[in-house]
Amino acid sequence: MIVVMKPDHSPEQAEAVMTRLGEFGLKGQPVFGVTRTVIAGLGQVLQDHRDDISMMPGVDEVIRVSKPYKLSGREVHPNDTVIELSHGVKIGGGHPVFMAGPCAIETEEQLWASASGVRAAGAHVLRGGAFKPRSSPYSFQGLGVPGLKLLRQAGDEFGMPVITELLSVRDVDAVAQYSDILQIGARNMQNFVLLGEAGKTGKPVLLKRGMAGTIEEWLLASEYILSEGNPNVMLCERGIRTFEPATRNTLDLNAVALLRRLSHLPVIADPSHGTGKWYLVKPMSLASLAAGADGLEIEVHPNPDHALSDGAQSLTPGNFAELANECRALASALGRPFAEPPVAVPVGS
Amino acid sequence: MIVVMKPDHSPEQAEAVMTRLGEFGLKGQPVFGVTRTVIAGLGQVLQDHRDDISMMPGVDEVIRVSKPYKLSGREVHPNDTVIELSHGVKIGGGHPVFMAGPCAIETEEQLWASASGVRAAGAHVLRGGAFKPRSSPYSFQGLGVPGLKLLRQAGDEFGMPVITELLSVRDVDAVAQYSDILQIGARNMQNFVLLGEAGKTGKPVLLKRGMAGTIEEWLLASEYILSEGNPNVMLCERGIRTFEPATRNTLDLNAVALLRRLSHLPVIADPSHGTGKWYLVKPMSLASLAAGADGLEIEVHPNPDHALSDGAQSLTPGNFAELANECRALASALGRPFAEPPVAVPVGS
Amino acid sequence: MIVVMKPDHSPEQAEAVMTRLGEFGLKGQPVFGVTRTVIAGLGQVLQDHRDDISMMPGVDEVIRVSKPYKLSGREVHPNDTVIELSHGVKIGGGHPVFMAGPCAIETEEQLWASASGVRAAGAHVLRGGAFKPRSSPYSFQGLGVPGLKLLRQAGDEFGMPVITELLSVRDVDAVAQYSDILQIGARNMQNFVLLGEAGKTGKPVLLKRGMAGTIEEWLLASEYILSEGNPNVMLCERGIRTFEPATRNTLDLNAVALLRRLSHLPVIADPSHGTGKWYLVKPMSLASLAAGADGLEIEVHPNPDHALSDGAQSLTPGNFAELANECRALASALGRPFAEPPVAVPVGS
Amino acid sequence: MIVVMKPDHSPEQAEAVMTRLGEFGLKGQPVFGVTRTVIAGLGQVLQDHRDDISMMPGVDEVIRVSKPYKLSGREVHPNDTVIELSHGVKIGGGHPVFMAGPCAIETEEQLWASASGVRAAGAHVLRGGAFKPRSSPYSFQGLGVPGLKLLRQAGDEFGMPVITELLSVRDVDAVAQYSDILQIGARNMQNFVLLGEAGKTGKPVLLKRGMAGTIEEWLLASEYILSEGNPNVMLCERGIRTFEPATRNTLDLNAVALLRRLSHLPVIADPSHGTGKWYLVKPMSLASLAAGADGLEIEVHPNPDHALSDGAQSLTPGNFAELANECRALASALGRPFAEPPVAVPVGS
Repeated sequence: MIVVMKPDHSPEQAEAVMTRLGEFGLKGQPVFGVTRTVIAGLGQVLQDHRDDISMMPGVDEVIRVSKPYKLSGREVHPNDTVIELSHGVKIGGGHPVFMAGPCAIETEEQLWASASGVRAAGAHVLRGGAFKPRSSPYSFQGLGVPGLKLLRQAGDEFGMPVITELLSVRDVDAVAQYSDILQIGARNMQNFVLLGEAGKTGKPVLLKRGMAGTIEEWLLASEYILSEGNPNVMLCERGIRTFEPATRNTLDLNAVALLRRLSHLPVIADPSHGTGKWYLVKPMSLASLAAGADGLEIEVHPNPDHALSDGAQSLTPGNFAELANECRALASALGRPFAEPPVAVPVGS
Repeated sequence: MIVVMKPDHSPEQAEAVMTRLGEFGLKGQPVFGVTRTVIAGLGQVLQDHRDDISMMPGVDEVIRVSKPYKLSGREVHPNDTVIELSHGVKIGGGHPVFMAGPCAIETEEQLWASASGVRAAGAHVLRGGAFKPRSSPYSFQGLGVPGLKLLRQAGDEFGMPVITELLSVRDVDAVAQYSDILQIGARNMQNFVLLGEAGKTGKPVLLKRGMAGTIEEWLLASEYILSEGNPNVMLCERGIRTFEPATRNTLDLNAVALLRRLSHLPVIADPSHGTGKWYLVKPMSLASLAAGADGLEIEVHPNPDHALSDGAQSLTPGNFAELANECRALASALGRPFAEPPVAVPVGS
Repeated sequence: MIVVMKPDHSPEQAEAVMTRLGEFGLKGQPVFGVTRTVIAGLGQVLQDHRDDISMMPGVDEVIRVSKPYKLSGREVHPNDTVIELSHGVKIGGGHPVFMAGPCAIETEEQLWASASGVRAAGAHVLRGGAFKPRSSPYSFQGLGVPGLKLLRQAGDEFGMPVITELLSVRDVDAVAQYSDILQIGARNMQNFVLLGEAGKTGKPVLLKRGMAGTIEEWLLASEYILSEGNPNVMLCERGIRTFEPATRNTLDLNAVALLRRLSHLPVIADPSHGTGKWYLVKPMSLASLAAGADGLEIEVHPNPDHALSDGAQSLTPGNFAELANECRALASALGRPFAEPPVAVPVGS
Repeated sequence: MIVVMKPDHSPEQAEAVMTRLGEFGLKGQPVFGVTRTVIAGLGQVLQDHRDDISMMPGVDEVIRVSKPYKLSGREVHPNDTVIELSHGVKIGGGHPVFMAGPCAIETEEQLWASASGVRAAGAHVLRGGAFKPRSSPYSFQGLGVPGLKLLRQAGDEFGMPVITELLSVRDVDAVAQYSDILQIGARNMQNFVLLGEAGKTGKPVLLKRGMAGTIEEWLLASEYILSEGNPNVMLCERGIRTFEPATRNTLDLNAVALLRRLSHLPVIADPSHGTGKWYLVKPMSLASLAAGADGLEIEVHPNPDHALSDGAQSLTPGNFAELANECRALASALGRPFAEPPVAVPVGS
């Protein structure tokens, strides 16, 4: 860390900083500038060290030098993480995938129609929500465990791994039992207890970015999972909250491009939530791939105008098939062709 | 709701909207303008209704007319909610209170020094964190249940109700056993399962605003607690996330003033997190009261530069005493004098 | 407009609203709902009408129905605007272009090296700043008119139309004399006097989005130019300001995709300012095209680490050539191949 | 500045940084840490130096140590700036003032009614807009020079200095002729040419914060005025743009409190624009004073529901008188009583 002293600090104050650094096992090295004195604190610096020093008399500011995340960064793990799922599906490593299906699982009929459509269009993973986070307690909250069972059946029947949202620690066992991937939603990006419990399952986890989550906080959140010994984490950009009201969220593709450089974890984009408008899903899917995304998570509903949640951002199976074709052509032109569709092997093999 | 049709919609499309409204038990009434046709949907409109209609062919936009929150609004509950705690402490109703203490409980010595100082300075509620949400898994995470027990002891010894953060549903029983108020932190504002569980305890709940939470979402989140039959909810503004890097967060006092008008729930301000800088805590405490706050939550640590978390925003007991004096003078000038200090009655009476 | 009355409004208040609407030449039509009464105001509604009505006793809210922009929207002008420049260069209409060159013009040598490089790599328009908006008065402010002359010479010598920023009404004549396109920077998006003066020149204008400009405000700003009778306006997304510190700005590609739908004006993306990091310029250029951009504006400097402004986001001519190749391949795969390079015809033909 | 080298940089790269620092007249001092090497660059560091170094091979990041603003900071000018106006009015130095009047000057009758009302209620400066920045070209744009003349007459008749907005360099002479204070609006905070021209007039300038302007950028913008030799600058917080739609802007009182510490310039708050709702103006005026504001700028209109702009945020003269009384009581309780009303001396004395 770099400790910037105030212009009018006393020699005793600088001395006290040097002493405190020593208490932390750090080496202090002062540098005297024209208008400012700074003291470099060398060694294994923790956030708590910086917080402490920043409060000392005579100290103006403390600046971090090392990056705070460790396990998620490319510095210690230069190669792309590749997550292996059933049916031969792999995520990461240069071949994008589609995760598609309804926002909320409503009925067997609706789920089967969605699954059938997205499988035919080449999707790799079936998505569907059984536990839904809704702003209002008066909105539809999802089918719960019966929904999970339906999702599992659909995945098995159509030969696809499945992903669903884990909303609470009380549902960890149920979700881990039925789903191949645990999705942590934007509202829970910093639900640290939930992250730890998801990590302990050993199951692949898709961690969505919080609506106000910085890229650094997001990577640190991923370390709550990784540090449980679970390397199978993927990150999902789903739009951040800005002043712009014309779209539901602002899909931040800068983050996708930057994460591909900073981190080895696969990066997924969710243009359905990222835009909130079905007619923007295709152009933003293409843009996400061009920015470097390892996959797309897309809402597909057989009858979007009767959907019980997020209808306005869902595609019909037909729209999705068209999108998938254009995405495949684009990805090939980028030299990163899509992964092969799932193979019809037994589950879990 | 108001359904705005596209300029080029067909009569059949408008007819289909009318029919769908009927399926929802709503009455549709068309209004023909110069450039646009709108259809008013009259009756008990749900979010799901609006989502559905917004997807129909020929529909350009659906606009909400009624407010989505019910139990938290002044329309149905015009008078201020007053929450009664032990030791005669009341929150809401025109007499502000101080909630003060350390961000994190570290040791008995540290907690007693804080509690003694804030009690002497006139604080009404003792705060202290036992479960700490930390951005990084490598930072101090709090003492857990032993910390809760210390907090309870300190509250009893100094004659003050206590407040502490509830981080996870797995800790609901423990926190409800030891604490008078359950605090839901900013990162959990939309952890809906946790809100529901907190509501079920019947204990008073302080709900902090999320870093990207709109006022409407915040009120809706409060309804997850209220709709469990628990009326003892207070709201706490603690700063939102904006583009401004000079302060840790942007304390939004517009929200305090507006909530006092929209809602009957007590509104607390947290200038410690809201600014992130100890030297801004006093002016922003005064400003919060002037904007209408029913209380202040303030971090106080006997030795801020050795604090294990958030030292840079903590006051010493001496600073807090000075702040408390100025706040009392201001509140009296505003015609809303501070509540009397806690009385030394047995706990829970 | 839709006037939403308060739940407890009086019949007289509703009557007064009807009367005021009549004074504005609007027809009022009341609609009585279960919990609310609304009054539709039909006719040519202005912002001032809405502001006025929103203040009336008994009125809770006034909601706009028609879009406030007129000349820039696709409703009145369904086909893409195509802007014709010298050397056969056209912007808009399905064939993207590159605008490239240095952020600031520093010397003849630097400008010639940049122009030569970008021309060879296939750029269509040469960019270069002579008047620079700098946050600090102590930073390099640009060469001024001598810079304009250099830019004109370089454009003529290399056979490219040129674009440069117009900072102030006092420079309108000079910039219009030497440049083919007038660029209005982000800080001036709502400098309405400047917009009007730029419009009056009849020259093509590239209007950048302000750092906090909504899409609606941006389109309205374009109408300050269009309403002067100048149809040659293009819009440039260059990143908005959000809470994320990891990139200089957040390039909002949702806006690019949405504008292609809302407006007939060409939409350009500026990934150099939009990211602030040279190594993100290529992926975000590709993403911009995939989102639907009609062109890219990119900073190229022969020696970025000696640049007098924005070096950290500039590409070398070699990097740019690589980017241009990948962009061309992508655009062809999208079915929207890049425009042909400029032809070596006399200026202004 | 602090130059952070990449973990894998070569000795030659560090050597090149040292050489470049020398070319800038700076002294380089390397510090070798456990995981990182940093090089301190000592001397008069400019932004351009940092930009240049940040591009060099092997450099990871360049961190600024000194503050970039000079003339506006308390370090070089510890005492509050006090701006002297006609009629004995002073701004800054511990005694707040009211600036009040209509958003836009509409008619003599409207202006006289406003001026009479605010003068009677104790206002110190009369505000009124003659040139109005409006998002849409189809809205009322102000009366222009005839409006300026009316404002001057009203100021003289009621014995108050006046303030009005300067929108464009082409109006500098006219506005400086008729107005005592030149107001630079939020949209022009970084209209650097306009700032310079305003500075050259020598007249007091009120500089509003841009909707996306950081505090640092705002102070740097003030230096465009100050560096013209004009010390009479005041800063006006008028709300920033955030994700929150419930209020027109988010009045950032953190900024008021922080600026009082960072800068010697008077800080004014504008709760009318900062909230956009007339019923929030009083609580936020009180809060602004408590946060440390040196003055309040408030919109007052004799008939807000007929105002041609911003009616929804304007007070009646009666509301303003009530607000003024409460503000005076609060300011006295804070130990910073309001300045005396203007004295009836000849203009300009």
